Amino acid sequence: RLAKESPRKIPIPPGHTAQSLEVALRDLAEILGQQWVKFNDVPLIDGDYHAVPLSHDSYHILDPDDLVPSAVCWPADTEDVVKTVKWANKWKVPIWPISVGRNLGYGGSAPRVRGSLVLDLGRRMDRILSVDTENAVCLIEPGVQYVTLYEHLQEIGVGNDLWVDVPDLPGGSVMGNALERGVGYTPYGDHWAHHIGLEVVTPTGEVIRTGMGSMEGSECWQLFPYGYGPHQDGIFSQSNYGIVTKMGMELLPNPGGVRVFMAAFPRREDLYQAIEIIRPLMIKKIIGNVPMFRLGLQDASLYKTRDDFELDERGIVKPDSLKKVIEELKTGEWVFYAVVYGPDEITQAKYEYVKKQLGQINGTKFYQREDVPPEHYLHNYAHYTTGIPTWRELDRMKWVPNASHMFFAPVSANSGQDAERQSNMCKKRMEEYGFNCLDTFFIGTRAMHHVISFMYNRKDAEERTRALACIRALIDDCAKLGIGEYRTHLALQDQVAKTYNWNDGAIMKFNEKIKDALDPNGILQPGRSGIWPKEYRGKGFEL
Amino acid sequence: RLAKESPRKIPIPPGHTAQSLEVALRDLAEILGQQWVKFNDVPLIDGDYHAVPLSHDSYHILDPDDLVPSAVCWPADTEDVVKTVKWANKWKVPIWPISVGRNLGYGGSAPRVRGSLVLDLGRRMDRILSVDTENAVCLIEPGVQYVTLYEHLQEIGVGNDLWVDVPDLPGGSVMGNALERGVGYTPYGDHWAHHIGLEVVTPTGEVIRTGMGSMEGSECWQLFPYGYGPHQDGIFSQSNYGIVTKMGMELLPNPGGVRVFMAAFPRREDLYQAIEIIRPLMIKKIIGNVPMFRLGLQDASLYKTRDDFELDERGIVKPDSLKKVIEELKTGEWVFYAVVYGPDEITQAKYEYVKKQLGQINGTKFYQREDVPPEHYLHNYAHYTTGIPTWRELDRMKWVPNASHMFFAPVSANSGQDAERQSNMCKKRMEEYGFNCLDTFFIGTRAMHHVISFMYNRKDAEERTRALACIRALIDDCAKLGIGEYRTHLALQDQVAKTYNWNDGAIMKFNEKIKDALDPNGILQPGRSGIWPKEYRGKGFEL
Ligand SMILES: Cc1cc2nc3c(=O)[nH]c(=O)nc-3n(C[C@H](O)[C@H](O)[C@H](O)COP(=O)(O)OP(=O)(O)OC[C@H]3O[C@@H](n4cnc5c(N)ncnc54)[C@H](O)[C@@H]3O)c2cc1C
Ligand SMILES: Cc1cc2nc3c(=O)[nH]c(=O)nc-3n(C[C@H](O)[C@H](O)[C@H](O)COP(=O)(O)OP(=O)(O)OC[C@H]3O[C@@H](n4cnc5c(N)ncnc54)[C@H](O)[C@@H]3O)c2cc1C
Repeated sequence: RLAKESPRKIPIPPGHTAQSLEVALRDLAEILGQQWVKFNDVPLIDGDYHAVPLSHDSYHILDPDDLVPSAVCWPADTEDVVKTVKWANKWKVPIWPISVGRNLGYGGSAPRVRGSLVLDLGRRMDRILSVDTENAVCLIEPGVQYVTLYEHLQEIGVGNDLWVDVPDLPGGSVMGNALERGVGYTPYGDHWAHHIGLEVVTPTGEVIRTGMGSMEGSECWQLFPYGYGPHQDGIFSQSNYGIVTKMGMELLPNPGGVRVFMAAFPRREDLYQAIEIIRPLMIKKIIGNVPMFRLGLQDASLYKTRDDFELDERGIVKPDSLKKVIEELKTGEWVFYAVVYGPDEITQAKYEYVKKQLGQINGTKFYQREDVPPEHYLHNYAHYTTGIPTWRELDRMKWVPNASHMFFAPVSANSGQDAERQSNMCKKRMEEYGFNCLDTFFIGTRAMHHVISFMYNRKDAEERTRALACIRALIDDCAKLGIGEYRTHLALQDQVAKTYNWNDGAIMKFNEKIKDALDPNGILQPGRSGIWPKEYRGKGFEL
Repeated sequence: RLAKESPRKIPIPPGHTAQSLEVALRDLAEILGQQWVKFNDVPLIDGDYHAVPLSHDSYHILDPDDLVPSAVCWPADTEDVVKTVKWANKWKVPIWPISVGRNLGYGGSAPRVRGSLVLDLGRRMDRILSVDTENAVCLIEPGVQYVTLYEHLQEIGVGNDLWVDVPDLPGGSVMGNALERGVGYTPYGDHWAHHIGLEVVTPTGEVIRTGMGSMEGSECWQLFPYGYGPHQDGIFSQSNYGIVTKMGMELLPNPGGVRVFMAAFPRREDLYQAIEIIRPLMIKKIIGNVPMFRLGLQDASLYKTRDDFELDERGIVKPDSLKKVIEELKTGEWVFYAVVYGPDEITQAKYEYVKKQLGQINGTKFYQREDVPPEHYLHNYAHYTTGIPTWRELDRMKWVPNASHMFFAPVSANSGQDAERQSNMCKKRMEEYGFNCLDTFFIGTRAMHHVISFMYNRKDAEERTRALACIRALIDDCAKLGIGEYRTHLALQDQVAKTYNWNDGAIMKFNEKIKDALDPNGILQPGRSGIWPKEYRGKGFEL
């Protein structure tokens, strides 16, 4: 018998009984080794960022016991993953791979279908398989975190030359984040766009390598993004078509200089003009990174909790109170963090140019590192943009007690009109539901990830329910205007997927056709991104 | 009856007789209109670049009558494409879409399976659907050529601000070339990487839009590359999974200045050191475009024909004779064309830096436009790199009488070792078969397209056969060393696909699984990239 650590009832996957599941898992324990398979009968303790549980979504928006696995296993290598996949096909148990499981705000380590087996790939498959310093690329396994990759580059003495693009928090998996098409801060901030080559275990247990890796003995697997014939990589992002066991990632070569700065804008209406000014700076790559345009209140939440403000009866920060804090922090209704790269003469020229452009907005203030106190976020920003991990974003998690955040993350054009429209709409709807709208725009070449931190007290069931209702309303509000999310929490993936409805939802029919071809038994991550295998469709699994 | 223009026998597709085909095509003529369907009974006239025939591969390497369609049709819009696809499923006729059909060196307008119906999309679907000047993107149909897009931008008055990345010859389709993952010269030279959003008709006749286009009313279809869930685009490049009817393309904003230059290296061995020096310049984006490293002889072929040289008995240019021409042209054994972009101060600094680096190679000469006579290719290069089409590459097509070229196009690491190894190996093998090896390396961030122009007299059956045998030997030589081609001629796609053989050819099994799911009747481009639908597999269709 597998050890059970507590008396909590183990959730049973569809089509199974407690008995059949136990038989199946005992079989898996034979295959992987007893110590590498465990029932999920532990108490559901939320832990914190540094100790994310595998038992459930620690930032739960549903009941904590809703999205829970029946068991967890720890494969050692690709071969173990293949065996587990074949096992799943044999026993028809849904499986859910995670690389690290810090997908906080989008579902954490939790599976979509209750009772799935979680494959915690990261624990044993956490090797940095190679670092090619001349070509600035590496090959990694699922468990490699931003912070471990960073430390490794330091250790081997190339940390000054080759940078890792780190997102807000560096404890996530480089692979997991890229597969979710997450964003960071440097010129390589579109993580998916900067991966190069995959090894994938298909839902029926074949192993493929994409790009040049599909040729025996190629030395270009991590150098040339394509191979010959169809380029498959994209279909393995945000999907349930395969388990990625190796991934190439480009490293950013030190551009030989950097100048970080912050601009603060006094009025909420300045959003429109500022984005219009920034748009050509992005397309022309005068600003070299993925800069960040943030609501003053969101920026302030790094220094303050909600209780530091005067609130109205709904819990919304009062405008006058915000004004006071903004004055104290010397920021504005909006703040803009960006960086220009290169040797001093070049960054000087670029900075002056950007300043002149944004300076057209009345009352704009500019800050560089020497202008701000040591606790100022700009210093952290200087770290992010030079590939140095920082944990500063955790400060934000004190906003309310037992704070969780969900991200509501629509895509916006790089246009004043779209940014303003989205921001105002979200603010209105969120305040109606009693939440402060905390916007950040991550600005890409031609579009932005408009990421709204949705902060709630996860121990308060009423607040949780309200948060969920609000975000559901927002998804619908946006869809009506043709605005879609780039990524969403497990509980909302069905709804978001349905908003991608062009031509009667043709894309989902296409996705399902591929799903059925690759995963005839429907064992791999049923429901991820709203894609259900045929056995699950129309049987009430959708949320 | 459909009009027949000449008595040439019409090739019949597998599974059909002349009668059944005629019935089927008459049905199609009812659907599309009589004038939009024609039997391919015209004489096989090779024409020239400006008049590429739809009857066969005008740069044929096989017998001209080998890769020929039974008929050609001209759909007017996506709806017509859907109807044609449904027709093909009903009648089980293989179909072969082309956008413009100038895929010279890789098969021209010809289909892979004899007797296929060619869909000439470009003739009637040639609209530039939108140009978004603020965001520097456009939405185009298949028939839009580089030159027409260029002219359109001039006409609407934005030609100075927004540039088209043109490849060597601008008569190709912007879409067709991107789908082939072709290369150009500016920072947007990886054409596939700079498309943004597709509309695709699937092999069963559904219409999907990818990325944000999969949401009704989205304004971000041409702004944000991904949508929600799996990103499908890649599987439609170099594949037979769908017919693309619309594609977004990014336009390059004028970077505010440009400095083009050429460097010439005296010795063949300089290749090694030069590529080693160029490698970091690429990764660090000091050189801003996709520069070109070219054999002196290949460069000379723009000014000279083969008969201008002294040849040995096999037809190979004698080293001394080459030396003389190189002296006359003031070039070298290798020449490098590149560009740095930006305002004058920046290009000055970058150019000086590049010059200093490459200047480490003894005897390197540098040229800018003012240093060379008016007929020098550097002036054409200055056009390419600023998005201005030129026809100059046609000069090369005088090398031998009835010159065709095939491209042998392996991928190389950006490393001296790989470049030298490939170049020497190809030279040796090609000279053994009596062909001059004409190398060009198109240098990307971390890898190169090593494109070798394989020039032969297509009217000489012996020479053609020898060329084919030589290129087949090269494919095998390379595969043994783990070197693979990025793209190849129709006649060689089976062989090249087989060299992508990692894990017992796992990638092809994966490709076939997708093919069977999307195209159960196997009607769309059977054999493209070596992917055969199930009805065709193992039945001797492979070449
Ligand atoms: C305060 C805060 C700030 C944040 N800031 C950012 C930010 O700046 N940018 C950002 O992108 N995110 C951000 N996040 C969200 C999240 O923390 C990161 O995206 C994190 O990297 C995701 O978790 P992970 O990397 O551990 O991935 P995992 O949880 O391991 O995986 C993520 C998803 O991918 C799937 N998956 C993982 N590995 C594989 C595999 N090998 N094969 C197939 N499928 C797989 C999993 O099933 C899961 O659905 C933030 C979160 C918090 C709490
Ligand atoms: C002298 C010379 C120089 C050249 N230089 C270059 C160069 O610098 N760079 C380069 O990349 N190439 C070069 N080429 C090769 C070729 O001319 C170009 O790549 C050209 O753009 C391809 O032809 P096309 O655009 O008309 O595409 P098409 O012939 O229309 O299509 C190419 C392929 O894609 C498929 N296809 C086309 N449209 C669709 C669609 N809508 N849906 C599905 N499948 C489709 C077709 O079936 C075909 O297999 C050169 C050729 C010559 C002769």
